Amino acid sequence: MTSTISVTVWGEFRHEKKNPKVSSIYPEGMHEAIASALRRAPDLAVRTATLDEPDHGLPTDVLERTDVLVWWGHLAHQEVSDAVAAEVQRRVLEGMGLIVLHSGHYSKVFKRLMGTTCSLKWREATDKERLWNVAPSHPITEGVGDYFELPQEEMYGEPFGIPTPDELIFISWFTGGEVFRSGATWQRGHGRVFYFRPGHETYPTYHDANVQRIVLNAVRWARPTVRIKDSAPCSPPLEPLPPAPSS
Amino acid sequence: MTSTISVTVWGEFRHEKKNPKVSSIYPEGMHEAIASALRRAPDLAVRTATLDEPDHGLPTDVLERTDVLVWWGHLAHQEVSDAVAAEVQRRVLEGMGLIVLHSGHYSKVFKRLMGTTCSLKWREATDKERLWNVAPSHPITEGVGDYFELPQEEMYGEPFGIPTPDELIFISWFTGGEVFRSGATWQRGHGRVFYFRPGHETYPTYHDANVQRIVLNAVRWARPTVRIKDSAPCSPPLEPLPPAPSS
Amino acid sequence: MTSTISVTVWGEFRHEKKNPKVSSIYPEGMHEAIASALRRAPDLAVRTATLDEPDHGLPTDVLERTDVLVWWGHLAHQEVSDAVAAEVQRRVLEGMGLIVLHSGHYSKVFKRLMGTTCSLKWREATDKERLWNVAPSHPITEGVGDYFELPQEEMYGEPFGIPTPDELIFISWFTGGEVFRSGATWQRGHGRVFYFRPGHETYPTYHDANVQRIVLNAVRWARPTVRIKDSAPCSPPLEPLPPAPSS
Amino acid sequence: MTSTISVTVWGEFRHEKKNPKVSSIYPEGMHEAIASALRRAPDLAVRTATLDEPDHGLPTDVLERTDVLVWWGHLAHQEVSDAVAAEVQRRVLEGMGLIVLHSGHYSKVFKRLMGTTCSLKWREATDKERLWNVAPSHPITEGVGDYFELPQEEMYGEPFGIPTPDELIFISWFTGGEVFRSGATWQRGHGRVFYFRPGHETYPTYHDANVQRIVLNAVRWARPTVRIKDSAPCSPPLEPLPPAPSS
Repeated sequence: MTSTISVTVWGEFRHEKKNPKVSSIYPEGMHEAIASALRRAPDLAVRTATLDEPDHGLPTDVLERTDVLVWWGHLAHQEVSDAVAAEVQRRVLEGMGLIVLHSGHYSKVFKRLMGTTCSLKWREATDKERLWNVAPSHPITEGVGDYFELPQEEMYGEPFGIPTPDELIFISWFTGGEVFRSGATWQRGHGRVFYFRPGHETYPTYHDANVQRIVLNAVRWARPTVRIKDSAPCSPPLEPLPPAPSS
Repeated sequence: MTSTISVTVWGEFRHEKKNPKVSSIYPEGMHEAIASALRRAPDLAVRTATLDEPDHGLPTDVLERTDVLVWWGHLAHQEVSDAVAAEVQRRVLEGMGLIVLHSGHYSKVFKRLMGTTCSLKWREATDKERLWNVAPSHPITEGVGDYFELPQEEMYGEPFGIPTPDELIFISWFTGGEVFRSGATWQRGHGRVFYFRPGHETYPTYHDANVQRIVLNAVRWARPTVRIKDSAPCSPPLEPLPPAPSS
Repeated sequence: MTSTISVTVWGEFRHEKKNPKVSSIYPEGMHEAIASALRRAPDLAVRTATLDEPDHGLPTDVLERTDVLVWWGHLAHQEVSDAVAAEVQRRVLEGMGLIVLHSGHYSKVFKRLMGTTCSLKWREATDKERLWNVAPSHPITEGVGDYFELPQEEMYGEPFGIPTPDELIFISWFTGGEVFRSGATWQRGHGRVFYFRPGHETYPTYHDANVQRIVLNAVRWARPTVRIKDSAPCSPPLEPLPPAPSS
Repeated sequence: MTSTISVTVWGEFRHEKKNPKVSSIYPEGMHEAIASALRRAPDLAVRTATLDEPDHGLPTDVLERTDVLVWWGHLAHQEVSDAVAAEVQRRVLEGMGLIVLHSGHYSKVFKRLMGTTCSLKWREATDKERLWNVAPSHPITEGVGDYFELPQEEMYGEPFGIPTPDELIFISWFTGGEVFRSGATWQRGHGRVFYFRPGHETYPTYHDANVQRIVLNAVRWARPTVRIKDSAPCSPPLEPLPPAPSS
């Protein structure tokens, strides 16, 4: 492992091309807003990739050199090829970190790693979201207080169709009366996965300082320490075995 | 839920047709050995299904009526259609129990639900396996003592590429020097999953009383209490929301 | 195990003697309100016990015959003797179920079993509590819908100083803006522990049908299947050992 | 947090004074063997403390300045004062790391944090122990291969009376036929706890390079990132509450 963390921010980059409200908030695309905040950290080298590039911007050599992948998608989950989704899953299992944002809960990549529906309740309205920090000593919440607020966000509500997280990091309160496990981690193979709820395309969520800090913290936390290829070796005994019974 | 548990035992049923050693141990097939032991329980209604039947013996109406599915496969995991594997996964997430046996660790069904490689070390030799009961108050170990032994079994060794189990039930000791998490549970959606290691086709493992008891216990433990279809509803607020900001 | 579940409902029974508001809601004491709801279940045999009885109503023979203990305390946690707290812990570790209610989060019994501070934020005001069911297939939520509401309750807020629960059952939303893990389970030794948040003494919470149903469900879920005394045996080898090295 | 990790190695230091076999292996005491290996790491500042010092060598100012505490005890767990055990527990819950070694499984400190019996099977004989690394991407196993062996160790066998670990790191195989969860972690409050099985006093285990490496890795992993004092604040509402109902 080198001392620089190689990050790839993947964005679907479709809303921005068709919805003026989204492009006014994210003129360079949501992925660029996320990436440019990360680029301020001197220990990160950040590239971006988007759906409509060849191989969705994730050819093997990019994935091989990526330490941590950040994923935002929404409209076009089904357009992500099964082959690329399988490669991302393989790399996570080998050790690559994965940060899944907001509507990425329904991405092929996240669903393959969780094995569950990843379904939830939702509402686009005028809810405020207050994210409670339930893991104040976790590296992902470093510098975040007891809670922080997003003045407007899409509501996501429980039940959330995920396996029990290894670590629960945030629980959200919404004005309209719902709650949500809005930050959670899972180890999958040798890779660390963090799901982080906020980030609806019609709100300036990725310009929020707390959100930016949490994504940065998560990238550092998810940095791989190993790369271990899958194998299923036939393994000779380490201790003497009894003789085979005569037939 | 009726009082009878509807069980389907799925067997690949290929080894038995080509390897006389296997067919001598399991003349009716491994699935029939597993099923006939379960049929002695008055609270179970047991059918079988095999790979080479239409829809692998698992058409929708069978899956819909199955409370708990038992799965043994090895040679032909890739011949199980993606469509059937997806349907089994869907049914587990809705509530159906799933008992995965031995080489079923590499089945499409199990890998989809785990999201990981499910890889392990292995050796076909003359190891004895001793399974230690590390959850003596779990329903799956009811009637099983501190440990039990299988005089000969294939060795499976750690590391085992699974997500951290919700509950660890058995750890195996092998003569050749390895250990293995040989019984483990996961909740996935509304369904309960139990992986149970023993059952190599060239040994009479499914004639063993402890193995039979554990599979029966697991079936009863995995019985669904609900059936909840996947949904992702748009949900109206339960509390008053602020007005939309004027633009 | 007999077919009847032997339940002891323990109540501190102090508020009721000094606060007319509490005694007007619970004229027979909170423990009697909880117990009388449970007594409607034909499979339960329910007794009560209170702080000011000899041995706090929990002499050894009562504890030995109790399958599931329900605990409500608040003002006088320190008056519970260490000896009785240790006995309750011992019985849980042997298999007895334990349901800890509301302010019982700070009881000696719960803190001994958790090993943590069990601290939380709180407020006595006019909050509504909405409990979201995040485990709709868990036996504890049988018959409970997506959520239920308590029109007034004390607020408990995160962070809650507990070990990560084995299973998270409810998350609460409060009018004032907080969230709380208000239903959670832990296996401790051979016993099952359920913490359930609602139940402030100045509100009629234990007369609520959903609360009563959940306590009943929890009692049935926590019913012991074994009783295993603590032991740390010196254990002879099961396989031949090498000779001791000559010195 | 400064860049140096302040480590206190606590040793009971009784066996060494009465058993010549132990003192021949550990002439300066077991704590000194553990500490001197850690002192080779430039990022650690290591002190020791023993049972027979005033306050067992752990007065408040030492505990306050300790980032990670390493604990070995066996003969005299009951001589550790409840007050010191409570202070150690409090410091772990605030963030101090704790590494519990071998027979420390029965220490007051570990039992208070686990809440369970912490019992196990045992045998002093001529077993070899082989520790399988089941978490090859965990920081605690950095530099450790698939497994390592200790040519002679006391046997500890399952079932081990602990809460389900957050992370299982090692599983041991013993010649005599047993298995054991010999490396495991738990988060308790804001502190990280690692239990590591090897280290019987009559074997040179703490001179073993793998054991030394793992203890060093664990110290670095357990380093606190925060110090958060316990509190249970009455918390004003963040959102408007309804008026109190008129009585």
